[in-house]
Amino acid sequence: MESHEPFLREAIALSKSSMEHGDEPFGSVLVKDGKVILRAENSVFTGHDMTNHAEMNLVKLAAQHYDTAFLADCTLYTSTEPCAMCSGAIYWSGIGRMVFACSETRLGEIAGIGLNVPSRAVLQTGARTVTVVGPTNLEDEAAKVHQEFWPKHLGKA
Amino acid sequence: MESHEPFLREAIALSKSSMEHGDEPFGSVLVKDGKVILRAENSVFTGHDMTNHAEMNLVKLAAQHYDTAFLADCTLYTSTEPCAMCSGAIYWSGIGRMVFACSETRLGEIAGIGLNVPSRAVLQTGARTVTVVGPTNLEDEAAKVHQEFWPKHLGKA
Repeated sequence: MESHEPFLREAIALSKSSMEHGDEPFGSVLVKDGKVILRAENSVFTGHDMTNHAEMNLVKLAAQHYDTAFLADCTLYTSTEPCAMCSGAIYWSGIGRMVFACSETRLGEIAGIGLNVPSRAVLQTGARTVTVVGPTNLEDEAAKVHQEFWPKHLGKA
Repeated sequence: MESHEPFLREAIALSKSSMEHGDEPFGSVLVKDGKVILRAENSVFTGHDMTNHAEMNLVKLAAQHYDTAFLADCTLYTSTEPCAMCSGAIYWSGIGRMVFACSETRLGEIAGIGLNVPSRAVLQTGARTVTVVGPTNLEDEAAKVHQEFWPKHLGKA
């Protein structure tokens, strides 16, 4: 049976790495035929660009390496549910499936900010189908880095 | 009285230019204190990146040049209502206002494809307010390039 856990764990590890590099804690990987082929972290602060979310960075990297036919058979695994911008980017890229560990709702409870449009609400309006899986049983594991980062970042701790 | 027309006309001119360059017909400008300070066209095909929408390109350019405090007093003018991805990008950038000529509904009637989430539906979920104006009385003028491009592009003419 297909397991999402190893890939979500890699995305969660990237979310921690991102925070250690001075950025917001989000990470994503692109998987094809059971192998990770691309990795991306959030780079909002270090890249001086508020749109440099992990998923957006990964999609832009994927677009430079692969065509939409190839990407249709790929899965984007991400530590936390993509925002409306990133859900849109996934839609336009041609990527066939997206799996997230921590929900946007859970992130909102911790960070209290954001663009709270569920990724499914964005993707279900598209002309092509993107399969969405999540949140998963790794939600608590993925949420840990948010509990560490956001209260400090927002000056609450 | 403030007039949006000159800036929307410049965005519409960029949408035509974009088509002439071999891309999808969309254009945007960024305005501060009544002057255009940045311009961007769609570059999906020539840039080999399906996320290279005019608004996304403009926001990424703006992020490299200005900080969010400066961008709060800027208006992004765009030929056609931004998709969910671009609405999200505008939200994260800190840009204070967005004005579009042609609605997503009108684009959908012509192109029949896309991610049909109204920009207001995305932006109203955010923690900060982005003022949205549109569609305007230039909708027909902005729609012309779509009538020329999409039926041919989608093989209907």
